[in-house]
Amino acid sequence: MTSTRIGADIIAADHERRGAALKTDYQALGEKLARSGIDIESVTAKVAAFFVAVPSWGVGTGGTRFARFPGEGEPRGIFDKLDDCAVIQELTRATPAVSLHIPWDKADPKLLTEKAESLGLTFDAMNSNTFSDATDQAHSYKFGSLSHTQAAVRAQAVEHNLECIALGKAIGSKALTVWIGDGSNFPGQSHFTRSFERYLAAMAEIYKALPDDWRLFSEHKMYEPAFYSTVVQDWGTNYLIANTLGEKAFCLVDLGHHAPNTNIEMIVARLIQFGKLGGFHFNDSKYGDDDLDAGAIEPYRLFLVFNELVDAEHRGVEAFHPAHMIDQSHNVTDPIESLMASANEIRRAYAQALLVDRAALSGFQEENDALMASETLKRAYRTDVEPILAEARRRAGGAIDPLASYRASGYRARMAAERPKVQGGGGGIV
Amino acid sequence: MTSTRIGADIIAADHERRGAALKTDYQALGEKLARSGIDIESVTAKVAAFFVAVPSWGVGTGGTRFARFPGEGEPRGIFDKLDDCAVIQELTRATPAVSLHIPWDKADPKLLTEKAESLGLTFDAMNSNTFSDATDQAHSYKFGSLSHTQAAVRAQAVEHNLECIALGKAIGSKALTVWIGDGSNFPGQSHFTRSFERYLAAMAEIYKALPDDWRLFSEHKMYEPAFYSTVVQDWGTNYLIANTLGEKAFCLVDLGHHAPNTNIEMIVARLIQFGKLGGFHFNDSKYGDDDLDAGAIEPYRLFLVFNELVDAEHRGVEAFHPAHMIDQSHNVTDPIESLMASANEIRRAYAQALLVDRAALSGFQEENDALMASETLKRAYRTDVEPILAEARRRAGGAIDPLASYRASGYRARMAAERPKVQGGGGGIV
Amino acid sequence: MTSTRIGADIIAADHERRGAALKTDYQALGEKLARSGIDIESVTAKVAAFFVAVPSWGVGTGGTRFARFPGEGEPRGIFDKLDDCAVIQELTRATPAVSLHIPWDKADPKLLTEKAESLGLTFDAMNSNTFSDATDQAHSYKFGSLSHTQAAVRAQAVEHNLECIALGKAIGSKALTVWIGDGSNFPGQSHFTRSFERYLAAMAEIYKALPDDWRLFSEHKMYEPAFYSTVVQDWGTNYLIANTLGEKAFCLVDLGHHAPNTNIEMIVARLIQFGKLGGFHFNDSKYGDDDLDAGAIEPYRLFLVFNELVDAEHRGVEAFHPAHMIDQSHNVTDPIESLMASANEIRRAYAQALLVDRAALSGFQEENDALMASETLKRAYRTDVEPILAEARRRAGGAIDPLASYRASGYRARMAAERPKVQGGGGGIV
Amino acid sequence: MTSTRIGADIIAADHERRGAALKTDYQALGEKLARSGIDIESVTAKVAAFFVAVPSWGVGTGGTRFARFPGEGEPRGIFDKLDDCAVIQELTRATPAVSLHIPWDKADPKLLTEKAESLGLTFDAMNSNTFSDATDQAHSYKFGSLSHTQAAVRAQAVEHNLECIALGKAIGSKALTVWIGDGSNFPGQSHFTRSFERYLAAMAEIYKALPDDWRLFSEHKMYEPAFYSTVVQDWGTNYLIANTLGEKAFCLVDLGHHAPNTNIEMIVARLIQFGKLGGFHFNDSKYGDDDLDAGAIEPYRLFLVFNELVDAEHRGVEAFHPAHMIDQSHNVTDPIESLMASANEIRRAYAQALLVDRAALSGFQEENDALMASETLKRAYRTDVEPILAEARRRAGGAIDPLASYRASGYRARMAAERPKVQGGGGGIV
Repeated sequence: MTSTRIGADIIAADHERRGAALKTDYQALGEKLARSGIDIESVTAKVAAFFVAVPSWGVGTGGTRFARFPGEGEPRGIFDKLDDCAVIQELTRATPAVSLHIPWDKADPKLLTEKAESLGLTFDAMNSNTFSDATDQAHSYKFGSLSHTQAAVRAQAVEHNLECIALGKAIGSKALTVWIGDGSNFPGQSHFTRSFERYLAAMAEIYKALPDDWRLFSEHKMYEPAFYSTVVQDWGTNYLIANTLGEKAFCLVDLGHHAPNTNIEMIVARLIQFGKLGGFHFNDSKYGDDDLDAGAIEPYRLFLVFNELVDAEHRGVEAFHPAHMIDQSHNVTDPIESLMASANEIRRAYAQALLVDRAALSGFQEENDALMASETLKRAYRTDVEPILAEARRRAGGAIDPLASYRASGYRARMAAERPKVQGGGGGIV
Repeated sequence: MTSTRIGADIIAADHERRGAALKTDYQALGEKLARSGIDIESVTAKVAAFFVAVPSWGVGTGGTRFARFPGEGEPRGIFDKLDDCAVIQELTRATPAVSLHIPWDKADPKLLTEKAESLGLTFDAMNSNTFSDATDQAHSYKFGSLSHTQAAVRAQAVEHNLECIALGKAIGSKALTVWIGDGSNFPGQSHFTRSFERYLAAMAEIYKALPDDWRLFSEHKMYEPAFYSTVVQDWGTNYLIANTLGEKAFCLVDLGHHAPNTNIEMIVARLIQFGKLGGFHFNDSKYGDDDLDAGAIEPYRLFLVFNELVDAEHRGVEAFHPAHMIDQSHNVTDPIESLMASANEIRRAYAQALLVDRAALSGFQEENDALMASETLKRAYRTDVEPILAEARRRAGGAIDPLASYRASGYRARMAAERPKVQGGGGGIV
Repeated sequence: MTSTRIGADIIAADHERRGAALKTDYQALGEKLARSGIDIESVTAKVAAFFVAVPSWGVGTGGTRFARFPGEGEPRGIFDKLDDCAVIQELTRATPAVSLHIPWDKADPKLLTEKAESLGLTFDAMNSNTFSDATDQAHSYKFGSLSHTQAAVRAQAVEHNLECIALGKAIGSKALTVWIGDGSNFPGQSHFTRSFERYLAAMAEIYKALPDDWRLFSEHKMYEPAFYSTVVQDWGTNYLIANTLGEKAFCLVDLGHHAPNTNIEMIVARLIQFGKLGGFHFNDSKYGDDDLDAGAIEPYRLFLVFNELVDAEHRGVEAFHPAHMIDQSHNVTDPIESLMASANEIRRAYAQALLVDRAALSGFQEENDALMASETLKRAYRTDVEPILAEARRRAGGAIDPLASYRASGYRARMAAERPKVQGGGGGIV
Repeated sequence: MTSTRIGADIIAADHERRGAALKTDYQALGEKLARSGIDIESVTAKVAAFFVAVPSWGVGTGGTRFARFPGEGEPRGIFDKLDDCAVIQELTRATPAVSLHIPWDKADPKLLTEKAESLGLTFDAMNSNTFSDATDQAHSYKFGSLSHTQAAVRAQAVEHNLECIALGKAIGSKALTVWIGDGSNFPGQSHFTRSFERYLAAMAEIYKALPDDWRLFSEHKMYEPAFYSTVVQDWGTNYLIANTLGEKAFCLVDLGHHAPNTNIEMIVARLIQFGKLGGFHFNDSKYGDDDLDAGAIEPYRLFLVFNELVDAEHRGVEAFHPAHMIDQSHNVTDPIESLMASANEIRRAYAQALLVDRAALSGFQEENDALMASETLKRAYRTDVEPILAEARRRAGGAIDPLASYRASGYRARMAAERPKVQGGGGGIV
């Protein structure tokens, strides 16, 4: 039986307190949607079946190169992290899977599986790390990993990825996400072509070890930690990787990894068209890879991404099942709160995209009626779908108001008492 | 026999006046380079054999949506334009070919060829135009051309490109450049996938009509004239086009068509690696597609692009012969002067890239000696190669100082007298 | 008595058809807001009293440097434009004032005033034009206007602005907006300091001629039409201008005139704090000064701007009465439709900002509760306030659905018949 | 007597090995410049008198939020750092002053002064740190420092700055640089106006404590570590600060702290014009605040900044003495090498700017001869001034080739042996 971190009483109190208003709002929205020929129940059902994975590292406090300001009751290891992830799932019912990051989350697979099962959680994609040095590793990644000039370093990085696959197999994961920091800080430092050839060769080795029912996700990023060039710098290069490796290789799109002003939803459409969209790392950003909470800065952009996903579903694109994962850095908020809010924002964008009148839109597109096409999207977008999201949560046993319920639960204070404060903070790396 | 627009006396006076100083400088530079084991003569020979095409439209004054401020003596048509192009070639000896833009430059191929021959010019890539409406065309491109929702519009756009090929064949061109303005101004206006499918189908028709010894260049651009999405928005999409169409299809890189901060030289390297670099539209920019003179804003970036080209030559990349063309908008300068200066800047970047010690660079790259790798590029870059450029011009019969010679020739004043002032100017399209 | 362009029957049919649903939605929203202690009527009243001026040039089809694709029934002059503006006001009741652009809208002030009165319109800020050359002017603005190196050109530009003030006085305007295209395309072309000194001196002359009850708005812009530097490039320079000129001088913020990623709402807050916010040119953009319809690309950003305005009202900032004007380029839509939609989007952002629980927000800010502060804004933002906007229109005699009513009216088709098609289109200025 | 870290033999060997070639190159350059009426000796003299301060933190290896990869022989504290700084000065003779960062460099002022004197160094501007938490501090800066909502936190931050002034007075510093990380990650988190009011009030307290012969430098930055808004986000806000505080307050310009595409040299010109340019933090960047080596990415931009500085000197701007400091993060290079290279690049830009023919440039500007104005800058810029830089170093007792001499000296290997390896590295803060 699944243990609970929050407690049925908290959920019950939430339902008791907010149920009536929700009922009213849900009914009013249902009537309004019905006038447009939309059945609210079918939307609610789809929303309830939509999930997004939570990253294990997301429940810890993030930081910048300048400082990290730890919060209260931070998780001390993967088992604490799973507890925190369970809280998010209990309250939102939108995040049943957790994505691990190795080596930080390395543990006995049996213990991991037992713990996850006890919490009603499963494991999503595995994430390898070759962008920083583990304490005991033989070779440094200072000058790259999978694309390093030295064969021994590349071999070590490949080996690490194989280890991730092995652990993943043991705990039921079905995908490996590879993001590397390889690149250069100076013109001339790296030979672009040779670096990429080495990267492709190393990835081919990893790909060979991939189980048949797994997918390999490569992730592009414009810059940071490398500040002049990055080996997998954009979706063009990412596509070339997936295309070179084979049919189990796909491109992962992190919303914060693009050049300023980039039309990301169009990249999503292109990758869908060419059969290479693997999935997402959701977050939001204003400047660079800010890793802010999904929907916090440009919610319409998030909607437009989901508009492409729903459109692809609508068109019946074959073998279309992108992975959804949050990837954020929570520097000034309680990470559990940010992840709950983000999971809701992601579902919100999905719900709004489901409301788009696709027949009408298609007509406006054919007729080049730009204004009405835009209005068609905007009308769906400006619908306040919170009652749908709340009702989906409520029916699944989650909270109508996850944030308020979480605060009412006193979970963070309990953890602050249980878990000793994590050392450290300011780095002063300027 | 080739007629001259400038006159031998002007060139002679230039050589007379500046020859001695050039000799001194060339010798001093030769000695300095010799100390690094570089034979200046081999560099000069390569520079002298490097050419960049001039766009016919470049000799007219450009403008913005706000206004166009015409200059004196503007060319009234393609034959005037060819005269102006000849001036650039006579003085720089770097621009023997002209790239035409149809419909503006449409004319009897026999007359075109005769005129060009008389001026010592040839014809480079043909450029079609489906981003604005010609006076007599049946369908408008307001909502797109090759990707338009209506088959008749696409057919018209295809037909126009076939016409460009036909004319090009008659005048000795060997390539067609296709840049379209197709895209959208509003989310929802266009269906990304359907638009791109239509584009690919239309391009396939054009490709079919391409002579075997021709190349087809598709050109990507992030935005403008479309301000929300562009069908061929970046090199990723451009690669997919070239790869879909076939082996005669290649990607054209316009230096001003990228997102802010984009590492363009890396895109160049990727396209070389995957056999799809078609060539360049050279210019410079600070904000968007500013179309300023090559090397005017970020000369080091231009050098880094050429560093990739010379590196590819050095590595003996097969079938590597990218096309070089200038594409600029001369709003506040005499277009002839800007084009001469730009041709020289492009040769400058090439010459500097030839000076890179590639064996040393390769060693630093292998050893991850980032600082010395950077210094190796910088040392080549900061060499003042003007004596090499000037000597290459001089030997080929051009001017040591093309700008001064041009001004001394009084050509612009003569044209101002010969050619009636072009009407117009301010648009006030805000 | 005010004449109507649309006809009472169209409005009546709209009310008849959509009145019942609106009543239901308005009531449901009212009840929901009441639960949060918000009186919907007070919000509706404020929205109904909020107006945004329409630019005379906005009712014509815009274009880019590549082409302009004219629409049907384009206005032939200022009197046609006023008719079109009246349509927007009749249907939205949000745009009672029109902003003129000289020289294009120059006309007998008596006729202008009579026409406006007959349509129920008034005149907002006057706009001068020294970024393009009028047919008959003595000196060209090719190299600048108010900052030109030659005194005669500056004098001509000053004189033009004085003429704008004179006409404005005659028709009841109370402000002059000065946007210039002055700048440079090449490093070195302009001396930054001397240019700005000349600009300040010329503006001082204009300022001297300003009536006591007028305001002078200077407008900054990062780039375009100048592509290396712009004399009034950002709000920092704009503030220095307003501060140097005097207490009737204020800064105008065009939402599309900033660097990528700029936090515009913060600039708005700074200008409010230092008493120099003059007002806005509303539009939306993804890349540069795209001049797309307000709220079409990043609606949350528009909301955040209004959040600052409502906050300032809430805090009782003294002498706070920013001017609101739309400034857009309608390239692919019917300009009347775009302006109606934009006026509604602007009111939408205002209405949403009015819903922010400012006491709660202030508390979260004091306690550094970043998540709840963000949620407080998001909750207001995601409220579908369309019923409030529609009700405000309905009560004022406008349409519940202005777009549908406009299309039903057949106005555009009537104009297409009445007004001969405007010549021209494609420029082909590349 | 000044002790040396490198040794006279190394310098002597460098002069012996490279002196002859330098003599030849210097003479050739001298003759070439003489032809343009420039006396090379006066340029060399000015270059030799130009200095840039080195930041104490710059000699340690930098990192990103993802990882820090320590180098060999890293300094263990301020006294080791001063040794490393001395090496830079010995070899380049361009960096006689060191800028300290408190609390990291806090030490007995007497010991600091003695150590510096023994190395021939002095102390430049003091840098306070309130962007990370020191181990023993009472209040956290997680939610800001000088602009924090709580008075106690602000008081602590003010107190820390006063402590910096006190230490600075004791060691001969004459300036305090204040850069804060204050800002917000979410819309709504901070009240823009109240935050800035608190900041101004706190800065006023610091200003009050400033000795009469000191300057206070405030530093703006667009983003990072805050990712939605920053209290001192741009030069506009920075100007308001300096103007509000008083005549000892000035703006510091870090080249990497601006929005994409910003024309930084224009900001420099504006601050000079309004008497508020305090000085620079030199570095280079391609994406954000990349903190790469000065001149490594866009050397022409660095030249254009110096062009403004030399122009201001040339015009005799009063009280013009901006501070020059390097501020970089050396993640993949030996920090000593990067700082030497950067100091040389900065001097290079200065030397090139000194070569600009200002009379000619001024004439071209007056005549709006954009092309020749641009060429005038480019001609100066493309001059290879390395012989001037090398000769200035040689005459002052530095190395003709500082990098080669440094490597020949074996200093780093000696330090690796002397100084135990610094613990740590990868953070894994994603």
